[in-house]
Amino acid sequence: MVKAKKYVIDKPFDGVPTDQNIKLVEEDLPALQDGDVLFQAVYLSVDPYMRPYLKDAKSGTPMIGEQLSKVVESKNKDYLVGSFYLVNSGWRTHTILNPSKTDVRIKPTKEYPGVPISLSLGTLGMPGATAYLGLNELLKPKAGDVVLVNAAAGAVGHVVGQVAKIAGCKVIGCASSPEKIAWLKELGFDVVFNYRTENLSALLSKEAPNGVNCYFDNVGGEFTDTVIRKHMAQFGRVAICGAISGYNATKPFMTESWSFPILFKCVTVQGFIVYANFNDQQWASAFEQMSKWIIEGKLKYREHVTNGFENMRKAFYELFSSDNIGKAIVKV
Amino acid sequence: MVKAKKYVIDKPFDGVPTDQNIKLVEEDLPALQDGDVLFQAVYLSVDPYMRPYLKDAKSGTPMIGEQLSKVVESKNKDYLVGSFYLVNSGWRTHTILNPSKTDVRIKPTKEYPGVPISLSLGTLGMPGATAYLGLNELLKPKAGDVVLVNAAAGAVGHVVGQVAKIAGCKVIGCASSPEKIAWLKELGFDVVFNYRTENLSALLSKEAPNGVNCYFDNVGGEFTDTVIRKHMAQFGRVAICGAISGYNATKPFMTESWSFPILFKCVTVQGFIVYANFNDQQWASAFEQMSKWIIEGKLKYREHVTNGFENMRKAFYELFSSDNIGKAIVKV
Repeated sequence: MVKAKKYVIDKPFDGVPTDQNIKLVEEDLPALQDGDVLFQAVYLSVDPYMRPYLKDAKSGTPMIGEQLSKVVESKNKDYLVGSFYLVNSGWRTHTILNPSKTDVRIKPTKEYPGVPISLSLGTLGMPGATAYLGLNELLKPKAGDVVLVNAAAGAVGHVVGQVAKIAGCKVIGCASSPEKIAWLKELGFDVVFNYRTENLSALLSKEAPNGVNCYFDNVGGEFTDTVIRKHMAQFGRVAICGAISGYNATKPFMTESWSFPILFKCVTVQGFIVYANFNDQQWASAFEQMSKWIIEGKLKYREHVTNGFENMRKAFYELFSSDNIGKAIVKV
Repeated sequence: MVKAKKYVIDKPFDGVPTDQNIKLVEEDLPALQDGDVLFQAVYLSVDPYMRPYLKDAKSGTPMIGEQLSKVVESKNKDYLVGSFYLVNSGWRTHTILNPSKTDVRIKPTKEYPGVPISLSLGTLGMPGATAYLGLNELLKPKAGDVVLVNAAAGAVGHVVGQVAKIAGCKVIGCASSPEKIAWLKELGFDVVFNYRTENLSALLSKEAPNGVNCYFDNVGGEFTDTVIRKHMAQFGRVAICGAISGYNATKPFMTESWSFPILFKCVTVQGFIVYANFNDQQWASAFEQMSKWIIEGKLKYREHVTNGFENMRKAFYELFSSDNIGKAIVKV
C-alpha cells in the first residue's frame, strides 16, 4: 500500500502564512482500479496565487497547485509507467487519478533538448505562458515602448522583461535586492531599481518622462497606485497579473479612485488569469517561441530549487519574503 | 463692425461652477481677410467635460466647446454664406477663422431628412459617437449581456441604452428623477432606478445576479466603485466615459484599490475620449447607422434647449444639478 504525504489547511489563513496555517498529513492510498494511474510528484510548484485562492479555505482543505509527476503504476493503457505529466493535484507526493473521470487537470509534458524538464513548471509552463501571453496579447508592446514590470526577478517578471527586450522595448524592472538587480541587468533590462531604496515616482519621471506605455503588474498596492495615477502614457496599457503586496494584508490598500487617470489618459487596465484568458493554441505558440529562444540563448531562466517535500512550506513562505530568485520549485 | 459676445473664465474654478467663475464679455471683430470666414453660432453645446478640462484654467481663458454655426460672411470660396458647420470655437456668438490656417476643428454638417440639424451636437454628433463607439468598440456587447449605464437620461446615456437594446442586451439604467425614469422606460430600458432612493448594490444583486457584463460609466465616484468592486461579471468590460460625480469635488473620492476585483474577475477597464480613440471613418459609420435608426423610429432622442446666449451659464450649471433630460444645447 502506498502512503501519500500531503499538505492541508490547518488554521485558516489570516495575514502572513505560517506553520500554524498549513500542516503535513499522511494518507493511505487504495489499490488502483481499472483506468487508474498513480502519479508520483517529482517537482512541485509554489506560486503566490495559492494564498488568495485559499483565503477563505476551511481547515482540512488541501493546498492547491501543479506538480510535475511521473507515472509509477498504471491500469490505463494511455498512461505509461515512467512518463511525465503536469498534474494539478495540489501539494501531495502521490496521487491516484482516473484521467477520464477526474476534473483534475492532467497535461502531458513536452521535452525540449537541452532544457530541464522542470522548466515545464516555469518558463515553459504556467508562469511563462502568463508572461508571454499577458505581455503580447494584452499589453501589445511596440518597439520603442516603455515597459514596466515589478517583481521582475520572479517567475513571471524575468520572462516579461526579456520578451519585451526582444520586442525592442525599453524595459524598466523593479526588484528587492542587489543580487536580483545584478541578475536582471545581466538579462538585458535597461533600468532596474530597488523599490525599497529608490523613489518610484522620481525614477519613472526620469526614465519614462513621456509615461509608461505597458505596465505588467505583479504587485498591486501602493506601487500600482502610483503608476496608474501618475505615470501612464496616453493610451497606456496595464495588465494586472498579480497583487502580491495585498495577498497577506489584513486591511485593504486605500487610495484615490482611478477613474480620472484612466479616463483622461485613455488607459486600459486589464486583469487576467492565464488559464481563463488564453486557449491551448495560444499556450502552445508561446512555448514554441520561447523554447526556441531558450535554445538559442536569447531567453535565460533561473530556478530556485528547494529540496525535499517536507520543505514545501518554507519554499512557499519565501515567495512573500522576497527570498527567492526566478521560479520557485520543490524537488521531492 | 461685428461685435462678438463670448464667455471667459473669471475666477478659476473651485467646486461647483457659479457666475463668479464665468463672465460674459464683448469683443470687436476685425474685418475679414482673404480666406477668412465669419461663423455665427446657431446652437451651442454644453457638456460636462468642459469643467475638468478647464480645472486649472486661469482668469481670461475662453470657455471651450463646440457650436453649430452658420457662415454669415465669407472671403473663402470653399465656405458659402448660409452653410452650416460644427466649429469648436468655444462659447462665443461670432468667430472669424481662416480654415486653412487655424487649429480650431471645423467640420461640415450632414443633414438627414426629418432630423433636426441641432442633433449634430447630440445623437448625430460628439455625444452620439461617444455612446455608439464606446459601447460597440470597447464594451462589445453580445445579445443577452447585462449592460449598465448611469446618467442614463443624459446626452450619452440614453443613446447607450437604446443601442444596447437594439443589440439584444438587458439594459439597466440609472437616473435621478421620476420624469427621467419614465422616459427611459418608454425608450425600452429593461430596468431603470433612481440611485438617490434605491440601493445600487441591492438592485444589481437582484437584476444582475451573474454580474454586469458591460458597464458604461459616466459618473465615477462611489457608484463606479461599487460596480467595479462588487458587481462585474467574469470577463466584464468597463468603459469610463466620464466621471461627473468628481468634476466639482474639492477632495478626491477614496476607496479600496481596484486591483483585486479587476484581477480575479479578469475585468477590463478602459478610459476613452471619443476624439482620441476613434477615427473619422468610425464616426461616420456610427452616424450612418444611427441616422437610419432615428428615421425608422428605433432610436429616439430628446433635446433640452435653453434659449438665449445669455443663458449659457444656466444651461451649463444644470448639467451638474441634474436638471436636464437628453442633450443640453443653447439656441442663440
